[in-house]
Amino acid sequence: MASLRIGVCGLGTVGSGVVNIFNDHRGLIEQRCNAGLQLVHIGARRDNADCDTSSYRLSRDVFEVVRDPDVDVVVELIGGTTVARDLVTQAIQAGKHVVTANKALIAEYGNELIALAEQAQVALRFEAAVAGGIPIIKVLRESLAANVITGVAGIINGTGNFILTEMANAGRGFDDVLAEAQALGYAEADPTFDVDGTDAAHKLVILASLAFGIPLDANAPVTEGIDTVTPADLEFAKELGFCVKHLGIARRCGDAIDLRVHPTLIPTTRQIARVDGVLNAVMVEADAVGEIVLTGPGAGSLPTASSVCSDLLDLGRVLSHSKVDPMPTLGVPSDELQTLPLIPRDEVKGVWYLRLVVEDRPGVMAEITGLLSERGISIESLIQRPPTAGSSQVTVVILTDSVACGQLDSAIRNMEALPTLSGSVVRLRVESFQEV
Amino acid sequence: MASLRIGVCGLGTVGSGVVNIFNDHRGLIEQRCNAGLQLVHIGARRDNADCDTSSYRLSRDVFEVVRDPDVDVVVELIGGTTVARDLVTQAIQAGKHVVTANKALIAEYGNELIALAEQAQVALRFEAAVAGGIPIIKVLRESLAANVITGVAGIINGTGNFILTEMANAGRGFDDVLAEAQALGYAEADPTFDVDGTDAAHKLVILASLAFGIPLDANAPVTEGIDTVTPADLEFAKELGFCVKHLGIARRCGDAIDLRVHPTLIPTTRQIARVDGVLNAVMVEADAVGEIVLTGPGAGSLPTASSVCSDLLDLGRVLSHSKVDPMPTLGVPSDELQTLPLIPRDEVKGVWYLRLVVEDRPGVMAEITGLLSERGISIESLIQRPPTAGSSQVTVVILTDSVACGQLDSAIRNMEALPTLSGSVVRLRVESFQEV
Repeated sequence: MASLRIGVCGLGTVGSGVVNIFNDHRGLIEQRCNAGLQLVHIGARRDNADCDTSSYRLSRDVFEVVRDPDVDVVVELIGGTTVARDLVTQAIQAGKHVVTANKALIAEYGNELIALAEQAQVALRFEAAVAGGIPIIKVLRESLAANVITGVAGIINGTGNFILTEMANAGRGFDDVLAEAQALGYAEADPTFDVDGTDAAHKLVILASLAFGIPLDANAPVTEGIDTVTPADLEFAKELGFCVKHLGIARRCGDAIDLRVHPTLIPTTRQIARVDGVLNAVMVEADAVGEIVLTGPGAGSLPTASSVCSDLLDLGRVLSHSKVDPMPTLGVPSDELQTLPLIPRDEVKGVWYLRLVVEDRPGVMAEITGLLSERGISIESLIQRPPTAGSSQVTVVILTDSVACGQLDSAIRNMEALPTLSGSVVRLRVESFQEV
Repeated sequence: MASLRIGVCGLGTVGSGVVNIFNDHRGLIEQRCNAGLQLVHIGARRDNADCDTSSYRLSRDVFEVVRDPDVDVVVELIGGTTVARDLVTQAIQAGKHVVTANKALIAEYGNELIALAEQAQVALRFEAAVAGGIPIIKVLRESLAANVITGVAGIINGTGNFILTEMANAGRGFDDVLAEAQALGYAEADPTFDVDGTDAAHKLVILASLAFGIPLDANAPVTEGIDTVTPADLEFAKELGFCVKHLGIARRCGDAIDLRVHPTLIPTTRQIARVDGVLNAVMVEADAVGEIVLTGPGAGSLPTASSVCSDLLDLGRVLSHSKVDPMPTLGVPSDELQTLPLIPRDEVKGVWYLRLVVEDRPGVMAEITGLLSERGISIESLIQRPPTAGSSQVTVVILTDSVACGQLDSAIRNMEALPTLSGSVVRLRVESFQEV
């Protein structure tokens, strides 16, 4: 193939970034691709003042790009999973390669799309779908290919990390910081997926698939959002030597997989504890390399577009010498992916942070600690604050030793039934990552 | 090509790691390579008890591997630049692909070897040559290919970082920690290249070449070692909000290049300030992605072997579908590399840390600061310690504003001529990386 001709669908934040890179770096791209690579067609419902599209064919119907016989690669940047799914499906069926930044699409429909792409012998790539400008897809798929990967953990939602960082640094409440994040453009008008962990779960599913060679399963992760974290918890965590990050964690335990997204206390001494604001970071543990950490911008127009373009350059280079892309989408051909069981949530062992408010009177602490010790749950640290003036209640914070989640749930249910306890018990997971 | 057959030359730390990965992960490698990839022949002067070589043809003469018609890829892991240069040259001339971990070989003879490889249409790869298990070569060459890279800075010598970290944390002296590093096996019996910066300079030259598309020039970096750093400097740096790291820094300033290896004060708030011990870290600044940082093990048997194997897997995959490797060794064909002038050392601007010991008497500080202000050098911070009991001398630490190196040199020469100054002025560069 003399030159790979590109059609971009979608002209939002990422789409305009891709167009800008092609506008500004045409020579560099041709040189570094070592082959022709041309943007020829853009499909977008409306213009975007952030980029100049005058050199390209422009269609209001994104499907025009798919139907264009002059387009070899369709870049799907419209987002969502309905039109995007049709678009990518039709592109593949038309024999076109596809590059996308759409994590929801890959996490939810990746298995079917990959099967279609393999059948049609076209490439399907999505470096930009996880962690924006951080090249974690390529690193997992290629750089660590000779490793058994045992764990991946990361800050993979910049909005959530911005909110937690602001809450921790300024002692501000969740709603307050969320409103600021929206004003700054970090959070969507509807920030549900950022806040409830869905966005991070989609990304985690993709990372886990690449890391462990398992099919994509969007429903696999146990997912908790950040909206339950309070400034008080961030304060107590700090006192105990931890900071709180919203992490996606994928761990291989023998032949089972543990997949979780939740606010997590991590020791302040860990590299990723120091990744603040809208930055993302992904930590990989693998048997040969040990641990590596990649940090960088997890979102944004040009960083994400940089990842989209790296996929395009890869394809341009490879397809100039070969009829097909020799790289399977998930690192191995999809019929060699192996479904591994998920560890049931109740059986996942871990250390927990608990915060509860109890009556300040003799015997209460004995009751609480008794409920834990009955189930063999040891206490690693305990902080009891004196009651504030005029109050008869004290706040108690407990760090447990490692315990199965089901055991802890049962102890907490019993605690919450005590008349001396006010409200419910706040519970957050603690990860030291000594074994990931 | 049905299967890519590999010959490994050298069975030291890295060689035994490669053999161990092939012994332990044969199935994984075949699967992730999506093509045959077999280790067939090992050349080593002696055995290494750390790995089992019984499944492979073994030669005492490494050149037997090059002459073996059953070997398609020669992996050069013997180190040094004499025999290694002959070996790689002969392998290329015999039409074999080459993978090496040898930074000195690439930095010093890379231009000639790459030209030979291009002529012979064989691949020459060296992911393991820089930063051990960190996949920085692939990230610069492929993931950031659509970016103009403006700077690379890194902790790229683990031995040096171990020594500086120990000195800073335990207040120990250089010689003391070096002896421990040797006992622990982190430093070579002859640690000259680690200590004097040569090893880091070799790696920096390779990074700069990939980042900026310039030919390799082993003599380009201004290079200073870590042996001049004292515990006192580490203490003062800390007081000023900095830590001291031995960095390789490559910066593109317009159409000129600044390449330096030296102990550097960096703000303790920077990600790489927190990379301690034998870890390596590389920070890249590029126009689209912004800044990304990669951290991981910079040396060691399996981490470095992981990088060697990633090159082999890449080649196995690509060459199963294409007669030639479409990826140029330095990201672009060597005839498209562009020689850019180095900024003369005297003209490199920067902030400096100065430490001097002077007589504790009136007028001395005026003399010192006068010599700076005469040359337009402003003082950003100044620390003056009271004289220790019984001493008539005081230590003065100065942080300058940004100044051209030649200007500073001239001020320092005049300071050192003052009879009130004892010994010489200690000078270390300060980098905040706000602009890299």
